[in-house]
Amino acid sequence: MNVKPREEVLKMPNYDPPLEGRRGKLRLDFNENPIGCSPKVIKMLKSLTREDIAIYPEYNKINKKIATFFDVSQDEFLLTNGTDEGIKLIMDTYLSPQDEILLPIPTFSMFEIYASIIGCQITKVLYNPDLGFPTNNLLKNISAKTKLIILSNPNNPTGTIINENDILKILKISKKKGILVLLDEAYYDFCGQTFLPSINKYENLIITRTFSKAYGLAGLRLGVLFSKSQNIKYLRRVLSPYSVNNIAVMAAMIALDDKEYIKKFSNMIKNNRNIVKKELEKLGLKVYPSHTNFLITDFGNPYDYVENELKKREILVRNRSNYPLLKNCLRIGIGTEEQCEKLLQAIREILSQWRKNQ
Amino acid sequence: MNVKPREEVLKMPNYDPPLEGRRGKLRLDFNENPIGCSPKVIKMLKSLTREDIAIYPEYNKINKKIATFFDVSQDEFLLTNGTDEGIKLIMDTYLSPQDEILLPIPTFSMFEIYASIIGCQITKVLYNPDLGFPTNNLLKNISAKTKLIILSNPNNPTGTIINENDILKILKISKKKGILVLLDEAYYDFCGQTFLPSINKYENLIITRTFSKAYGLAGLRLGVLFSKSQNIKYLRRVLSPYSVNNIAVMAAMIALDDKEYIKKFSNMIKNNRNIVKKELEKLGLKVYPSHTNFLITDFGNPYDYVENELKKREILVRNRSNYPLLKNCLRIGIGTEEQCEKLLQAIREILSQWRKNQ
Repeated sequence: MNVKPREEVLKMPNYDPPLEGRRGKLRLDFNENPIGCSPKVIKMLKSLTREDIAIYPEYNKINKKIATFFDVSQDEFLLTNGTDEGIKLIMDTYLSPQDEILLPIPTFSMFEIYASIIGCQITKVLYNPDLGFPTNNLLKNISAKTKLIILSNPNNPTGTIINENDILKILKISKKKGILVLLDEAYYDFCGQTFLPSINKYENLIITRTFSKAYGLAGLRLGVLFSKSQNIKYLRRVLSPYSVNNIAVMAAMIALDDKEYIKKFSNMIKNNRNIVKKELEKLGLKVYPSHTNFLITDFGNPYDYVENELKKREILVRNRSNYPLLKNCLRIGIGTEEQCEKLLQAIREILSQWRKNQ
Repeated sequence: MNVKPREEVLKMPNYDPPLEGRRGKLRLDFNENPIGCSPKVIKMLKSLTREDIAIYPEYNKINKKIATFFDVSQDEFLLTNGTDEGIKLIMDTYLSPQDEILLPIPTFSMFEIYASIIGCQITKVLYNPDLGFPTNNLLKNISAKTKLIILSNPNNPTGTIINENDILKILKISKKKGILVLLDEAYYDFCGQTFLPSINKYENLIITRTFSKAYGLAGLRLGVLFSKSQNIKYLRRVLSPYSVNNIAVMAAMIALDDKEYIKKFSNMIKNNRNIVKKELEKLGLKVYPSHTNFLITDFGNPYDYVENELKKREILVRNRSNYPLLKNCLRIGIGTEEQCEKLLQAIREILSQWRKNQ
């Protein structure tokens, strides 16, 4: 007799494996750091011993460093196996099938997937047509069943931010109603806006950060989740004791010390983001404002032609045209000046070719 | 207003952090590989690039290798972030709060923790007093609500195996009743008994393996979960797409190629296990049979004195005396001839000292 999974799992779509074979190409598709982590991290990796690999992970040292770096207490955060695990952890800890979450869309796909596993009601609130945050619409949708509101700031894939006062308004209203707010700040380093100093004022606030973007450690899987110690106490009960690997821990120790590297890298990205935006606009394309390391660009009809032609040149960008509000849009990562120039030159050629063929 | 977690989480005990500061000591406490992984893995680590770290993990190559190595199809297994994630994944996929799991005890503590998060009924079945497997008692406890049976073979911390015919009996009965069997084979390499070739005959069977023990990769977090493709399809829907990090993938590629290393290491452990057992018995201690890389030894009253005196000598063993059936017992890992001799010499001295003081 076949063993049936839970009803919620039966209802889920089959798994769609992520794209692979990306090595060696110009990776502007996954919002990674396209030049990589601080060289000091690579130096450390060369000195790894058999004991570093054979021993179960130890977290004392990294916990101390994280507390100092982010100016929080050691009982106000948790390390997670990427932000993915952080999101799942929050849902596993707080959500029951009878609960409702409010999910502004389009956004990072894992929010919906993890909520579907639990089987809670997912109420989607559409971003504004200009990809601005739908604050009023979100607040209108709060119901007696609402247990969690997802805020992604800046948001992937829109690239846009939420007005600070709007976040405050949402935090205050949801605090009164006992609703949890998950504020994902994965792209903080390219934007600078954060509510981290507010975790003690808003006991309903949980913030997630990642080492996969600016820090260039996506392959190692490391996220951090911040909240008031009372919440961390509960979340810790549900977290696997060894979910973060030793190499991620050791790499983060070094990466956090090299503040100069992150600062330089973020500044470079912000600078090049402006240049690429202007150059794309010169080509007559609509480019949405971005506070991240990528640009959502409306290529009109030839969006898939552009995507495929870029792929032929080993330049990877992400097709987000099937997302709500993002018809004909590609998400384009920002890299070094040289990488951006290569991208722009390719787009110019491809669009010119396409126009000739019309 | 404080946000309350789910009832099941409120009921759970607070998190008890694992022991740390173990580096540089003789680690015979966590069943790790006390000399470490194949030296070829370390060589690979020295050639890691920034791209290996910055890129999201890719699994195509390791999936092909795992399929070949274990002689299964690519749709008959999943890589997990250690066996911990594999166990949680199975429970998240199949268990609802109204379900019951049958858990023979004493066993690996994460089974009970993950089941508690879901809130299903945990029916514990005590091992026999000789630490043999309680087959009849287990079968008697099957109820209409039973959805999952946990078998750990060989079992941690008892070190004992389940008779092959008993496993078959349990598999057949549970197959008829649509009950899932999770067979954890973490210590397979020190025992050699496996039901991996039976995953297609028993569609209710899921087997877990780990790279944390014989392979010496505990710090990297890598497990594999095997089952019929129909089950893998469901489990894959619930698994995070990037839960296994790139270094674990790259290390496993090399480790699986160095078959000779694992063979030599396992033979050494089996050989030294017999020697240590005999030597401990010469000291008048009761040592239970073991098919793993550790020995459960009853030290009588001075068990905690022995543990602490060993710690002073930087030799770490695990106190399991508060586990059912294991009163006064320490779990002692097996290492190289030299490591075992160091351990034995210390125990001889400590016991002699203790006897003098009585």
